[in-house]
Amino acid sequence: MVHKEFITDGALAIKDNKITFVGKRSAADKIDAETKLNAKGKIAIPGLINCHTHVPMTLFRGIAEDQELDSWLKEVIWPLEGKLRSDNIRAGALLGCLEMIKSGTTCFADMYFHEDTVAKAVEESGLRAVLAEGIVGINEKTLGEKMFKASADFAKAFHGCANGRVTTLLGPHSAYTCSSQLLVRVREKANEIGSGVHMHLAESDKMFRKFQKERGVSEVEFLDRISFLTGHTLAAHCIHLSEKDRHLLAERNVNVAYVPVANMKLGVGGARIKELTDLGVNVGLGTDGPASNNTLDMFETMKIAALQQKYIYSDPKVLPAKEVLEMATIQGAKALKLENSVGSLEVGKKADVVLIDVSKPHLKPLHNIYANIVYSARGSDVDVVIVDGKIIMANRCVKTLDEKIVMEEAEKTALDLLQGKS
Amino acid sequence: MVHKEFITDGALAIKDNKITFVGKRSAADKIDAETKLNAKGKIAIPGLINCHTHVPMTLFRGIAEDQELDSWLKEVIWPLEGKLRSDNIRAGALLGCLEMIKSGTTCFADMYFHEDTVAKAVEESGLRAVLAEGIVGINEKTLGEKMFKASADFAKAFHGCANGRVTTLLGPHSAYTCSSQLLVRVREKANEIGSGVHMHLAESDKMFRKFQKERGVSEVEFLDRISFLTGHTLAAHCIHLSEKDRHLLAERNVNVAYVPVANMKLGVGGARIKELTDLGVNVGLGTDGPASNNTLDMFETMKIAALQQKYIYSDPKVLPAKEVLEMATIQGAKALKLENSVGSLEVGKKADVVLIDVSKPHLKPLHNIYANIVYSARGSDVDVVIVDGKIIMANRCVKTLDEKIVMEEAEKTALDLLQGKS
Repeated sequence: MVHKEFITDGALAIKDNKITFVGKRSAADKIDAETKLNAKGKIAIPGLINCHTHVPMTLFRGIAEDQELDSWLKEVIWPLEGKLRSDNIRAGALLGCLEMIKSGTTCFADMYFHEDTVAKAVEESGLRAVLAEGIVGINEKTLGEKMFKASADFAKAFHGCANGRVTTLLGPHSAYTCSSQLLVRVREKANEIGSGVHMHLAESDKMFRKFQKERGVSEVEFLDRISFLTGHTLAAHCIHLSEKDRHLLAERNVNVAYVPVANMKLGVGGARIKELTDLGVNVGLGTDGPASNNTLDMFETMKIAALQQKYIYSDPKVLPAKEVLEMATIQGAKALKLENSVGSLEVGKKADVVLIDVSKPHLKPLHNIYANIVYSARGSDVDVVIVDGKIIMANRCVKTLDEKIVMEEAEKTALDLLQGKS
Repeated sequence: MVHKEFITDGALAIKDNKITFVGKRSAADKIDAETKLNAKGKIAIPGLINCHTHVPMTLFRGIAEDQELDSWLKEVIWPLEGKLRSDNIRAGALLGCLEMIKSGTTCFADMYFHEDTVAKAVEESGLRAVLAEGIVGINEKTLGEKMFKASADFAKAFHGCANGRVTTLLGPHSAYTCSSQLLVRVREKANEIGSGVHMHLAESDKMFRKFQKERGVSEVEFLDRISFLTGHTLAAHCIHLSEKDRHLLAERNVNVAYVPVANMKLGVGGARIKELTDLGVNVGLGTDGPASNNTLDMFETMKIAALQQKYIYSDPKVLPAKEVLEMATIQGAKALKLENSVGSLEVGKKADVVLIDVSKPHLKPLHNIYANIVYSARGSDVDVVIVDGKIIMANRCVKTLDEKIVMEEAEKTALDLLQGKS
């Protein structure tokens, strides 16, 4: 990706946590490496970046299916979330990290509760993450205040932890679940500590209309009026937008996390990406939580992103394979303000690298590398995962986590939660 | 599936090529089996049925990407197809069969050229298939006549071959590529030999409007007027239909192969399945050829089918997981007139069984079996494939084909074709 194209017979060298060489294998002969990894028959890509998820929700995979967003949240998810303790969060987060490693994701943006526990899971797993403690507070001032403080405290305390692999954002849930006073304070705090925000924006038509009716403006306009968009913003979904909204997102340099699978699954629609990118909006890709997806597989999300866009515009030329891969790598890095350190295979960048094993029937023949990665490969084709220069998976065997124990703990936790034992 | 629900701690017995027991493991203790397969931690489902593909096109995977259907066909696919010889077809078909086995498909409906070669690949692979030699003839009477004869000859000669695993249909490409005289003869011949037809129908809006303008009626009405729909019909796509068309499909018992991935990828739209099934139309699922999908993975197709339908109707309750699985199994079998022999795990039916290994992070926890199969599983989670009572894959190792040789042959063939060497 450094040359914006693939290099055949290529080689890549890493020293400590950084890439020190990318180029032809013939030119790498003189490099004296301690560990050598033969990548013959494999393709190296930058580690995939998942720009929007709620990783502890991996516990809830399949728990409430084929339901409306509203009842899904209110009747199933929120009551269960009310019961979650830190040890449950740990079990869910570790399972999510394990799934991400095994499907080639090296960095993810999470927003949830007990993010300190998520940070520890990230540290243990070897992954990179941008974490935000969620804030909700529309009517209950005390709750909002408490969550705001927790989010700010978390952002300050955990930024740079796990050897710099964890960075932080503030996590105001959305414009409709936070009061304007709270949102103003969030942005002020973010600016004060040099941070940004991760939030949901314009997720469903119903909410869009309700908000517009109650406040007289759209979510985006409302946020702009209270000067909320004056700093780094990662906004997930962005489905229901007016023309004016789109221009505002572009002018304010808002980063959009496009979440095709969960959006389709919940029947809430699909973001019109072309209008956004034509205006210069940076768009990354996200899976959302596994309770509404139901995987954390960014390969699947890449393919479905391309399919949904081609469907929306009735045009197969929209969002070609290469652009999708860029969304899942360098553009994702940009959305998380990590574009100077990850998102591409360049000398000087941190070594977050994924090797895809293409010696499989569904990846033959290899006429078009981008197409085979985006349209034919699956998460399970990832063979090696390197994060921050460390090999955390080789031969599909994860080195940082005990897969069996992580799965067992998560299963037990999920069962206990459902049976009210937790 | 025999009980319409999953059996926990279940067992399944097979004698020769038939299922002789399905039930609780405790009740199976007395069965004296020659070969025993421990399926602990696995889920048995009926083998998946792919209702629409062009398997030799596996050679063209990724060859022409992100293009319009029209230019994709005329500028890339058709010129290449003109060069195909029987040995090329064999290489492509074997690669396709290998990919299908490895992703849990046990039966597929194919329409292409040199289907005698495809039949041999099917025989070798151990799969089950319903094959149709394609017929095109709108202006060139001689060509149409030749292809019609070849299709009829193939249908007669190969029906029941590969120990009954291959059945046949006639393959008129579509209403817009065959003359009405030719279509009338195809249906008469199909009725005469007790066969049916596999065709494309109402695939793109552009074609729909062109046909309507030129002939004054829709493709479906046109076919009905010439009494073409008076026998078994498997119609792929069915995207652009009028209300009258839908009623006609229902009244004539036309079987629809819903092809969500290729339809989205080519930007031609999406079939509105609910209107069809509400009228009683039987709908199966298909992948289409890998040149426009770009896989033969029915797990992926199941998930994307559900996503596209929920998106089309803006309703997450539409096409729930269980219904998708039925589309990919028993409804697919019905679409191919094989519902009495395959498509469900029932005593007396032929043993086409797939075991899914659920001991993987992305399949944990297992709150909802249907949801985990349709929304979380990938083709690569298939561990064992049994067709016609024979284990053709165990531990993901295919027993009928040499994977390495099949891949090498296909790669070489594809390269030679592109370089004009073939």
